Amino acid sequence: MSPKITTELLKQLRQVMKNPRYVQEPVQAYIVPSGDAHQSEYIAPCDCRRAFISGFDGSAGTAIVTEQHAAMWTDGRYFLQAAHQMDSNWTLMKMGLKDTPTQEDWLVSVLPEGSKVGVDPFIIPADQWKRMSKALRSAGHDLVPVKENLINTIWTDCPQRPCKPLITLDLSYTGVSWRDKIVALRSKMAERKVMWFVVTALDEVAWLFNLRGSDVEYNPVFFAYAVIGMNTIRLFIDGDRMMDPAVREHLQLDSTLEPEFKIQVMPYGSILSELQAVGAGLSPKEKVWLSDKASYALTEAIPKAYRYLTPYTPICIAKAVKNAAETEGMRRAHIKDAVALCELFNWLEKEVPKGTVTEIVAADKAEEFRSQQKDFVELSFATISSTGPNGAIIHYKPVPETNRTLSVNEIYLLDSGAQYKDGTTDVTRTMHFGTPSAYEKECFTYVLKGHIAVSAAIFPNGTKGHLLDSFARSALWDCGLDYLHGTGHGVGSFLNVHEGPCGISYKTFADEPLEAGMIVSDEPGYYEDGSFGIRIENVVLVIPAETKYNFKNRGSLTFEPLTLVPIQTKMIDVNLLTEKECNWVNEYHQKCREVVGAELERQGRHEALRWLLRETEPLARVQ
Amino acid sequence: MSPKITTELLKQLRQVMKNPRYVQEPVQAYIVPSGDAHQSEYIAPCDCRRAFISGFDGSAGTAIVTEQHAAMWTDGRYFLQAAHQMDSNWTLMKMGLKDTPTQEDWLVSVLPEGSKVGVDPFIIPADQWKRMSKALRSAGHDLVPVKENLINTIWTDCPQRPCKPLITLDLSYTGVSWRDKIVALRSKMAERKVMWFVVTALDEVAWLFNLRGSDVEYNPVFFAYAVIGMNTIRLFIDGDRMMDPAVREHLQLDSTLEPEFKIQVMPYGSILSELQAVGAGLSPKEKVWLSDKASYALTEAIPKAYRYLTPYTPICIAKAVKNAAETEGMRRAHIKDAVALCELFNWLEKEVPKGTVTEIVAADKAEEFRSQQKDFVELSFATISSTGPNGAIIHYKPVPETNRTLSVNEIYLLDSGAQYKDGTTDVTRTMHFGTPSAYEKECFTYVLKGHIAVSAAIFPNGTKGHLLDSFARSALWDCGLDYLHGTGHGVGSFLNVHEGPCGISYKTFADEPLEAGMIVSDEPGYYEDGSFGIRIENVVLVIPAETKYNFKNRGSLTFEPLTLVPIQTKMIDVNLLTEKECNWVNEYHQKCREVVGAELERQGRHEALRWLLRETEPLARVQ
Repeated sequence: MSPKITTELLKQLRQVMKNPRYVQEPVQAYIVPSGDAHQSEYIAPCDCRRAFISGFDGSAGTAIVTEQHAAMWTDGRYFLQAAHQMDSNWTLMKMGLKDTPTQEDWLVSVLPEGSKVGVDPFIIPADQWKRMSKALRSAGHDLVPVKENLINTIWTDCPQRPCKPLITLDLSYTGVSWRDKIVALRSKMAERKVMWFVVTALDEVAWLFNLRGSDVEYNPVFFAYAVIGMNTIRLFIDGDRMMDPAVREHLQLDSTLEPEFKIQVMPYGSILSELQAVGAGLSPKEKVWLSDKASYALTEAIPKAYRYLTPYTPICIAKAVKNAAETEGMRRAHIKDAVALCELFNWLEKEVPKGTVTEIVAADKAEEFRSQQKDFVELSFATISSTGPNGAIIHYKPVPETNRTLSVNEIYLLDSGAQYKDGTTDVTRTMHFGTPSAYEKECFTYVLKGHIAVSAAIFPNGTKGHLLDSFARSALWDCGLDYLHGTGHGVGSFLNVHEGPCGISYKTFADEPLEAGMIVSDEPGYYEDGSFGIRIENVVLVIPAETKYNFKNRGSLTFEPLTLVPIQTKMIDVNLLTEKECNWVNEYHQKCREVVGAELERQGRHEALRWLLRETEPLARVQ
Repeated sequence: MSPKITTELLKQLRQVMKNPRYVQEPVQAYIVPSGDAHQSEYIAPCDCRRAFISGFDGSAGTAIVTEQHAAMWTDGRYFLQAAHQMDSNWTLMKMGLKDTPTQEDWLVSVLPEGSKVGVDPFIIPADQWKRMSKALRSAGHDLVPVKENLINTIWTDCPQRPCKPLITLDLSYTGVSWRDKIVALRSKMAERKVMWFVVTALDEVAWLFNLRGSDVEYNPVFFAYAVIGMNTIRLFIDGDRMMDPAVREHLQLDSTLEPEFKIQVMPYGSILSELQAVGAGLSPKEKVWLSDKASYALTEAIPKAYRYLTPYTPICIAKAVKNAAETEGMRRAHIKDAVALCELFNWLEKEVPKGTVTEIVAADKAEEFRSQQKDFVELSFATISSTGPNGAIIHYKPVPETNRTLSVNEIYLLDSGAQYKDGTTDVTRTMHFGTPSAYEKECFTYVLKGHIAVSAAIFPNGTKGHLLDSFARSALWDCGLDYLHGTGHGVGSFLNVHEGPCGISYKTFADEPLEAGMIVSDEPGYYEDGSFGIRIENVVLVIPAETKYNFKNRGSLTFEPLTLVPIQTKMIDVNLLTEKECNWVNEYHQKCREVVGAELERQGRHEALRWLLRETEPLARVQ
């Protein structure tokens, strides 16, 4: 992968940073965050402004361009990728390393006195604005909102904002109607004494209305906002997709409804002016609830005294706890996904020795097998199909320049998943199609021990996920090893593959306590730059645990793996496993056999079934 | 223990809350925090205002009195104790439980509109002031500083502030001279570009000057402040103790010194006016460094633009990393402490069956044996000597009303420690002098497994202690059990038994990363209200760990137990231990035999030596 040449683009950006047509006063620095106006992690091509200006297209990163410098902050998953994709105009700021300055500290160190730092107020979350603005002000600089996005002014071939048709989900998928979700939301609003709730995150809009879209690749969402009052519902959405009879029927747009469930459809672009009108019309004590991650622009539309900001919205929290219909859907989706992967791995086992399977071919084949399954919609993220040294690039995506051929001499890491109408999957398996070295097996086994330690953990109700992170690392730590990413993230139900408010990470972010029905990933890893990458990932469901005692009647929780794909036993050094760990693997494989085996049988996929049976032979520990 | 009757006192307090002699305007609520003007955890009798007004004398708690209500916030360690010590005028607010309101939320819920909430500005830390003031203001109330402490106005027999002689510590104890500590501090100040540093914590003053005192029971500190400039040293301290020739010699008060090491001694009470003078004389860019936990009064003395506030001071961080002299001192202190405890447990084993040993007798006997050891100064905290149900009161201290007789039918928990001139100890052992039940052994063994999991943990350099907390709980969690306190705290070197900035807790407080030389406690427990308490506590030293690999050259750390007191094998259900855990116990006991055995031998304590040898017989696991 060769870096993007950005010299000319940076020159143009530095010109518009001083051009009175776009800025009231020249700005000495311009911040280009990753996100869109909804603070999405995955964004539409029209919103890939940071990738456009820098070449770095990983999912997380913030660019800052000053008159003299261009710098990119990203985290451990992307150090290698960013270094490859950016040219020498850019300085890589490795977040999480001790000597890396924060964006604020760096700005203060490079800016001339009394500088203005510009940012698009629709793209920067209010909480980030606040922190950055304060830090800059205390050093004598100013953070200023620049209404017109400066990247857009130089991005001549910027694609259109997508506006694709919607999918309606009935009760068999969602378990709860959108009306009942509105009722529940209003009751949370009443509890907190707020009169309005502004839905800004795309997955929250989709979840609330039981609608899905395809405006953003991998995330089945659509560009929209919603403003929910105690008696009104306003949906801000563009295009003729609201003319679709199925959507009109689903939202009961043409029925005579009680007024409090009547949805007013408004143009997407009118959210700011409508919210300003709401803000102007508030009586004392009428609060408006927003996420503290909503954009600065929308947050400012509500006078400060009337804002009620929380890190997680009631929708985010309700969405995280899957109901029975969603849980059953997720189970079905994971069984289908396992069928596809059994087919894939069986195929790879035969084809890899021929030397014709590249990372891209393998990724495409995985998609092909998945697309044969019922209710398949699309992939849930860009497939990480990586062999040998590419496996050490944590969020690698094969492109022709890097595309490596799978062989019997290298470890192959496949992190992939799909959106099915009944659920979202995300699974990583690390395979060797020849004979792994003792060292590779050793590292794999430590990662497996960490995976099991989390998956089999029993913990009190109300425990936050970050308290489980060290369980995943303990076996690696014992040998002086570690990995530079979190252990797990929330997973949506036919929604975003990464969602809040729960997760498992050493970073003490404000995660909400785990509760039964939440779904997270369990994905420890180990990576050697230039050599190989190992990761073992299941999606797991939080379930009540039966325990011998019950301290303070709190109840306990544990995890049930939804992912049911064999873990390659060839990679395991059985002697490093405890008896309990060995039993865990055997019981897991037994379940794969029973559940996925039955489905393979049903689908008449006999060769893949034979592969599954071979791969799930019980391990035997030497005593 | 019968509760303190507070009806009359509360009436008096409510009167002075409206008395224009003490308050500019009536206050509708008055906050009585635990601390003193130095935000100490352990306080002098004259500072026990919260205990005076409420009766509750645990180490942590905040009282708030309004015209109608009196409420006490405290944490899980003290729920039982507070409930016992307070009369029905008081509402107990159990911190950490889901439904307990914060102080701010509670105040907002009970106060009439536009209320004033008073607090002594010397007692409330600046960060708490800020948080509370903001919350109250946004609800239409005001937090106001009340210069005269209102509790003092009604506390007619309030004791005098102590002013006891000082102890000087030479290099063999401290490893570094006070001059070198000043040099190191000034270099940290230069790094951060601050001109002044204000030392407000008593243990930080004591550490900086290599002095100790006895103004506060258990903590070898003395009432003083210091203000360190780049060229000046001001020590604010009262009494004729500065006339002591040893102190004058130690501080070189009468020598001709370079001016930047000349200590100006000033009255303790002049700190505020002197600091205000410093604040008034600052040139632009001259910052003053304070802990963000310094009192609101002192923080306000420096104009906001000139303040440099950090959660931990450079002294706090330097003090936490013990040098070779301090580490060796801590080792010696722990060996002496172990000798005393071997004597005690040997004595208890003989005496308990006679039915004459009460909790107080046992505590006194422990102190007697400790006081026989070289360089013994005092206890490091009130001995927790508790048997049967008293053991479940986590920070119990026996008093005549609760004093229970030890017996062969109950578990005995002893959490005790001492100040020696060469180090501070803190050790908990849980013993049974008869035959423990299978359930008691089971619980004890889970606690032991947690203790070992932390003590034997290997983790990367730079890991924060809170990431280790779940290791201590995992075995308990597996059976649905837990304990409602943190797992470890920093321990001073002949200083406070609880010190920052490191610790091991599920509470994600801003702990600093662990590094070699830090000393913390490892003390998981299990408590059944009304039945028994179990805790196993060692003080452990952070040391470099040898590992097979070394990821990113980060290096690894582990713990070395400094405490060397046998863990009662009678209480262990060996079959619940893994082989590794069993080996840990045997190796630990082997070290107790060698190190403490040699010292018992040297001191001619042959009976205690025989007890030690009996108690450290290797465990054998049934295969």
